[in-house]
Amino acid sequence: MSRRGFLGAAGGVTAAAGIGASVAVDRLAAPGAGAAGADPAATEPFYGPHQGGITTPPQRHTTFVALDVTSDRRRDVAGLLRRWTATAGALSRGAPPPPAPGEPADSGEAVGLGPARLTVNVGVGPSLFSHGTTSRFGLGPGQPWQLVDLPSFEGDDLDPAATGGDLSLHACADDPQVVFHAVRALLRQARGVARVRWSQSGFNEAAAAPGTPRNLLGFKDGTMNPTTAADLDSAVWVGAEGPDWMTGGTYLVVRRIRLDLAAWDALEPAAQERIIGRHKGSGAPLGATLESDPLDLRARTAGGEPVIPADAHVRLAAPSQNWDATILRRSYAYANPTATADGAAPSPGAALDAGLLFCSYQRNPRLSFVPIYRTLAGRDALRRFTRHTASAVFALPRGVAGPGRYVGDELLA
Amino acid sequence: MSRRGFLGAAGGVTAAAGIGASVAVDRLAAPGAGAAGADPAATEPFYGPHQGGITTPPQRHTTFVALDVTSDRRRDVAGLLRRWTATAGALSRGAPPPPAPGEPADSGEAVGLGPARLTVNVGVGPSLFSHGTTSRFGLGPGQPWQLVDLPSFEGDDLDPAATGGDLSLHACADDPQVVFHAVRALLRQARGVARVRWSQSGFNEAAAAPGTPRNLLGFKDGTMNPTTAADLDSAVWVGAEGPDWMTGGTYLVVRRIRLDLAAWDALEPAAQERIIGRHKGSGAPLGATLESDPLDLRARTAGGEPVIPADAHVRLAAPSQNWDATILRRSYAYANPTATADGAAPSPGAALDAGLLFCSYQRNPRLSFVPIYRTLAGRDALRRFTRHTASAVFALPRGVAGPGRYVGDELLA
Repeated sequence: MSRRGFLGAAGGVTAAAGIGASVAVDRLAAPGAGAAGADPAATEPFYGPHQGGITTPPQRHTTFVALDVTSDRRRDVAGLLRRWTATAGALSRGAPPPPAPGEPADSGEAVGLGPARLTVNVGVGPSLFSHGTTSRFGLGPGQPWQLVDLPSFEGDDLDPAATGGDLSLHACADDPQVVFHAVRALLRQARGVARVRWSQSGFNEAAAAPGTPRNLLGFKDGTMNPTTAADLDSAVWVGAEGPDWMTGGTYLVVRRIRLDLAAWDALEPAAQERIIGRHKGSGAPLGATLESDPLDLRARTAGGEPVIPADAHVRLAAPSQNWDATILRRSYAYANPTATADGAAPSPGAALDAGLLFCSYQRNPRLSFVPIYRTLAGRDALRRFTRHTASAVFALPRGVAGPGRYVGDELLA
Repeated sequence: MSRRGFLGAAGGVTAAAGIGASVAVDRLAAPGAGAAGADPAATEPFYGPHQGGITTPPQRHTTFVALDVTSDRRRDVAGLLRRWTATAGALSRGAPPPPAPGEPADSGEAVGLGPARLTVNVGVGPSLFSHGTTSRFGLGPGQPWQLVDLPSFEGDDLDPAATGGDLSLHACADDPQVVFHAVRALLRQARGVARVRWSQSGFNEAAAAPGTPRNLLGFKDGTMNPTTAADLDSAVWVGAEGPDWMTGGTYLVVRRIRLDLAAWDALEPAAQERIIGRHKGSGAPLGATLESDPLDLRARTAGGEPVIPADAHVRLAAPSQNWDATILRRSYAYANPTATADGAAPSPGAALDAGLLFCSYQRNPRLSFVPIYRTLAGRDALRRFTRHTASAVFALPRGVAGPGRYVGDELLA
């Protein structure tokens, strides 16, 4: 029984479950391709070696949620991950979510909408394993050495309430109401075990035009991402280094980066291009023609100046400047209200609270994200226009092989 | 030259300007029809007797902005409305916005996206005319008697920072990045004259299925809206009563209504249906079969109880219970982050900050919105689940007849 057909019923016949299907890595080569002409009935595979929403072609809408675990029982955490897996699996194929404990029915706002390429992935943060030197849930000794809180970066302006988290949920779909419904259903499953610590929604352009989508700086974003299976295995997926439950998994770094759009808009496009290191229109590196042209960091002008300035964002972020460190970026734009229901007053002359919900995926953040960000934090010309207000790191366990298994079962069982 | 073709250039050849075209009122009869299978190249007419985004079939995304005027010169306000009109007109047909005063270029994030059915309307609030008994900009004597701050309603929990405003901007489109780009371009035009007071974005389901979209309560919302030209002339558009600059205009009431989704989700669907007065699945009135079936408020059960309970939302909101008062509802769902960049801490056990960005349009809010809300505020069974956190009322002047005119020119010239 599909969600299209009936309200408030759980389980039943499923369609397009994609059991055992692997993530269609090659589709990542055409960023945004999945977003144009969105088909509400389209599904992304739920079962497979990797969780969804990582190499999945970016959907149009996302909500990221970091949660604190309020229970002190390991079996509650295991039960929650089991329920989340069942819920995410059902929603991914357009079926109604299973009822939450003690609750009567599906909330109903996604009836008739289809799965709209919904993906949900689940992560565990460093604080699930330990608080300081105190193990939690008996997990402390098994904490991967790759999974640690990020160091402070120059220019950080983090809101402690929007930093960290024991667990993460990340839902993406082409319909914002499908995303909302999924998050709501998953949070209902968490009642009494975990609660929202912070959350942030985001969007991508509908990408009518082919090519890499533009961020709110007006520049194409995501151009140099790894795309081949070999590059993803090298840069994104945890391999034999383990631990076992992470083999095929990855580490997520999420940062909310507020942009000073007023200052940015006051610049001539040519000045913006020197800050980024790429042409605004084409996305090509400065001095090149095509978006796909390689970065030539040694090119000099006739006057002997570097064509791509020494402090340009793309130069400092390039693998060649960071011990070959590579990350997979899959970011969304965000725009928040300037006065909120929780009573925050708008700042005088309030500007838009908007920017980038930056998400990167990497095999080992200590050896990729951290060195890249260290390089950027001190010298990046873009830094004048950014304010990092939220930050977290999570381990995303490997994908769920099939029914009967759940995300993180090897960690928690 | 369309926005698709070049970055940062203004003006040039335009397409599908729709000069003189009137709003396609009859399309409102199929709510959501415009939202399914969104065409990025689709345009809504900008010039015509009414402003856009009122009877326009609902787009998928919206941002509403209330602004305070910081200048004390009437000609600055007139200049701003003139620039907003030119900007909104250009963006509506997919052209780049004209440069803001002293700024170099378009921000570029909507290059290649098409107009995506963008509409922008502009309103003036009571506080533009007067502060207390003090006239502003010489406008006090011309303030329409229909344009007054709303009275307090039982259960209001308004954030003063998110209440009122001198001016309003309301952008709607099928692409969230097109909405963002429009708001950004319009706010750039306002620098030095007005600043954001509060803002709220919202979304609608992509409406793959035909029929009325569902709100976050899981119920169809918007069923009994006026749709015929005669009904709209009677309930929505200001007529001969004037003032002249409002003939063909309307009054907007906007309310952010936070929903207690946790309490709502704990109810059986049958209990929810008694609160709303309609069936959740079909949208039909209780005791009826089809969404389009009339409300029979006199029907009784075999036991003598009213079929639609005495405190059901649809009963209390019905025109027959409110001196025939009728409003046009055009609401969006909203979902805000629980911890914001402005530092608001999430409440303990933070729930989702989500609900309804309620927008209604009426010829005279004193005789329609206010009596309906008075009826609802004291008795509506739904009231237990709602918290009104933002509120404002604006006069939306009549539409712009053609180039050379601007929104509100008859008021401000």
